[in-house]
Amino acid sequence: MSVDDVLRHARANLGHHVRQLKTFIAHPSVSSAPAHRRDVRRCAAWLAAHLRAIGLADARVVETGGHPLVFASWRGAPGRPTLLLYGHYDVQPAEPLAAWRTPPFVATVRGSDLFGRGACDDKGQLFAFVAALQAWLQRRRRLPVNVLCLFEGEEEIGSPNLMPFVRRNRRALGCDIVAMADSVMGPGERPAIIYGMRGMLGMELELQGPRRDLHSGSFGGIVHDPLQALCELLARLHDGRGRIAIPGFYDRVRRVDDGEREALRRAAPTDADIRRTAAVERDWGEPGWSMYERLALRPALTINGLGGGHAGAGIKGVIPARAIAKLSFRLVPDQDPREIEQRFRRHLAALVPPTVRMRLRTLSMARPATLDPHHPALTAAARACERAFGMPPALLRSGGTIPALHGFHAELGVPVVAFGFAPIDGSLHAPNEKLHLPTFARATAALILWLEALAKGDAEHAAPPAPHALCEAAP
Amino acid sequence: MSVDDVLRHARANLGHHVRQLKTFIAHPSVSSAPAHRRDVRRCAAWLAAHLRAIGLADARVVETGGHPLVFASWRGAPGRPTLLLYGHYDVQPAEPLAAWRTPPFVATVRGSDLFGRGACDDKGQLFAFVAALQAWLQRRRRLPVNVLCLFEGEEEIGSPNLMPFVRRNRRALGCDIVAMADSVMGPGERPAIIYGMRGMLGMELELQGPRRDLHSGSFGGIVHDPLQALCELLARLHDGRGRIAIPGFYDRVRRVDDGEREALRRAAPTDADIRRTAAVERDWGEPGWSMYERLALRPALTINGLGGGHAGAGIKGVIPARAIAKLSFRLVPDQDPREIEQRFRRHLAALVPPTVRMRLRTLSMARPATLDPHHPALTAAARACERAFGMPPALLRSGGTIPALHGFHAELGVPVVAFGFAPIDGSLHAPNEKLHLPTFARATAALILWLEALAKGDAEHAAPPAPHALCEAAP
Repeated sequence: MSVDDVLRHARANLGHHVRQLKTFIAHPSVSSAPAHRRDVRRCAAWLAAHLRAIGLADARVVETGGHPLVFASWRGAPGRPTLLLYGHYDVQPAEPLAAWRTPPFVATVRGSDLFGRGACDDKGQLFAFVAALQAWLQRRRRLPVNVLCLFEGEEEIGSPNLMPFVRRNRRALGCDIVAMADSVMGPGERPAIIYGMRGMLGMELELQGPRRDLHSGSFGGIVHDPLQALCELLARLHDGRGRIAIPGFYDRVRRVDDGEREALRRAAPTDADIRRTAAVERDWGEPGWSMYERLALRPALTINGLGGGHAGAGIKGVIPARAIAKLSFRLVPDQDPREIEQRFRRHLAALVPPTVRMRLRTLSMARPATLDPHHPALTAAARACERAFGMPPALLRSGGTIPALHGFHAELGVPVVAFGFAPIDGSLHAPNEKLHLPTFARATAALILWLEALAKGDAEHAAPPAPHALCEAAP
Repeated sequence: MSVDDVLRHARANLGHHVRQLKTFIAHPSVSSAPAHRRDVRRCAAWLAAHLRAIGLADARVVETGGHPLVFASWRGAPGRPTLLLYGHYDVQPAEPLAAWRTPPFVATVRGSDLFGRGACDDKGQLFAFVAALQAWLQRRRRLPVNVLCLFEGEEEIGSPNLMPFVRRNRRALGCDIVAMADSVMGPGERPAIIYGMRGMLGMELELQGPRRDLHSGSFGGIVHDPLQALCELLARLHDGRGRIAIPGFYDRVRRVDDGEREALRRAAPTDADIRRTAAVERDWGEPGWSMYERLALRPALTINGLGGGHAGAGIKGVIPARAIAKLSFRLVPDQDPREIEQRFRRHLAALVPPTVRMRLRTLSMARPATLDPHHPALTAAARACERAFGMPPALLRSGGTIPALHGFHAELGVPVVAFGFAPIDGSLHAPNEKLHLPTFARATAALILWLEALAKGDAEHAAPPAPHALCEAAP
């Protein structure tokens, strides 16, 4: 029996899916902002209710100690594989608000795009899975495989509670494959399948100068300005060529073999593509690598925020008491975030002048990960994408970080198929984030086809899953 | 006839003066904040009304094209000298608000201090003049000398309209002496008389990186982070010893002769005093000079604010489109702010990497100034201070900047007597700014005595001033 009826059903209901997605986006589920804690919770409740409405009767909000998870299951296909769908319903802060053409939490269609915070990352991509399940359930009253949904609300703050939850619930979450969609597409609007991710280490660096703000007329030239000390410190984290100047930083970076490097070169965007996407005329960074290689295969360190003193209109003659920097490392196999954190702390401790006091806080940590790009589950996913999009997907490593990619693979011992359906110019983490609606429709079709393929596939799979009670918030 | 009755009147009315000062402070006249434009204007109107109420019948708000001036005159002492009292009713921004123990615009007495933004700088010190005039006018129905009051609302933004106004009104503002009180005291709670001020050059440095904010996972390591570029640039403005590394920066710094250096050493606070005041354990800066010498006799460059990206709670994986720094130079005779501005622009243009675009805005400019510390008007002021405070004042050069000090001297050709009645620990430009009320009472007494001394003095003075119509806003 063909799945054309399910595909037609999904196509016919595209407008309906988009309306639901708009409601999903309307919840400002900014996980990093304490002021949005209740919005995050309301968003989780809305998502659980929506999953129940499409036919996942046990969908519910699950406490974690932080922002809650949303869990749902459908176990009506005994003997067939079990697929765990992962995604996140939390979003990045929308600031700077003035740069948005339409309000970030009022999702707005302009042309073929839907604009709003989370339109891609990850509400829109997560919703392609939901739309695929909805099409199967509404058209056929069943799914071709067993499905577990696990959607978290803390991805943008480093998923502190996800893996502890997965560890506590290894049996209840038993599955054959994990799938997610939280990445950008390949060049030429090809969908992407990501088999590697950079890890992350997020740090806050605070320098305390004088105990209180001082008048720069009365004290300029005699007290070390913590803003100046901060600049002097941060300027010493890279050498003149763009390499990270922390001793031993590159020691554990795994060599990429020539075969993989060549395969990636064919699949990946060119330097010109990337410069166009980034809207920059000149690139920057470590010599000896293409831009794509630098972002996917090489580690990086960025300053994500600076603050202190008076940066608003006009000038204020002040030496502020404190200066803050937010930094993040992107790490590659086999760098260990804990080891890098220690090296970074030692390096700064050796550089910081005695005229200021330094405080370092570790804000997030995720290990880098790569999977086997030739695993049958990835191959089936690639075929489904090729049918839905009319072209083969790009098999890529990504510069981004999904802590879950490494975590699910390590904790559940199963392959993780990570799709990328976000447009390259989708402004993820930036103002005017957008989802390309024709891509959303094709992604939904690809996932419908993949579910069918997994049912037919001869991939080994676990014993039919029995519903195990979930163990919720940490003791 | 003794002036004891006037002094007694002022002492008896101290509570009344403080209540009026609280009302003055309640106007958030933050000149640098466009949002406070109307508050600045309301503050000017209040001050003019208050001057009329104490007996300066012609007091009024005078337009300038920017924030208005307040002008008043009393010309009832023909044949006697004319004194122009200068001050400013605008204040610095109150941020960071969370650091204030009581609200900045609700002036609050705790112990012997009055806390509030502007309590010292300059509403409180300006009000010592007002209280002295009020005591004379209420007790004697006249002043001992002719008085002009000129209070501006743009001192904290570099006084862009003051000197153009003074130039257009040289005849109407004809006087023998200018006086102001906008500085801190000397060590040991001695009042200060300031005979030199550092100049200022305020600049904004903006770096534009990518056209829009980028995801630091997708672009970290391939696009030059403008925050990093900013740090790398700012770190190169000082050498390793704390000297400013701009070519030619020190070329015009005038040598201080040994006699002056020794006189200042005796009058000035010690390094230990200054460290205690600044609440820092270690000082910083150019070697070869005491802390006081560095702040009063040597130029400085401070970073007053940094902004860009996400510096709030948590971490946001972003490479921001823009990074901002606010910087200010403090300059000494014979440095020329215009020349330093050009040197700074050339230096940065040579350093800025091709991966970012730089924009430099000049925000404020004031020339450094010194006067003859042995002028009779300063000597009379010193004697009045000694009587009121029971100890001689400290004759000092200040690290701060009052554009008016140079300007009045240059435009009107008269000496400028600049008193310092603000406590050393008064938190000027910082949270919890405070006025020491016993010092306010002594300052009022000193000014009452000085007015009397000026009337008796045999200092030459201009022809009795005739009221000339003021020429207001620029054509």
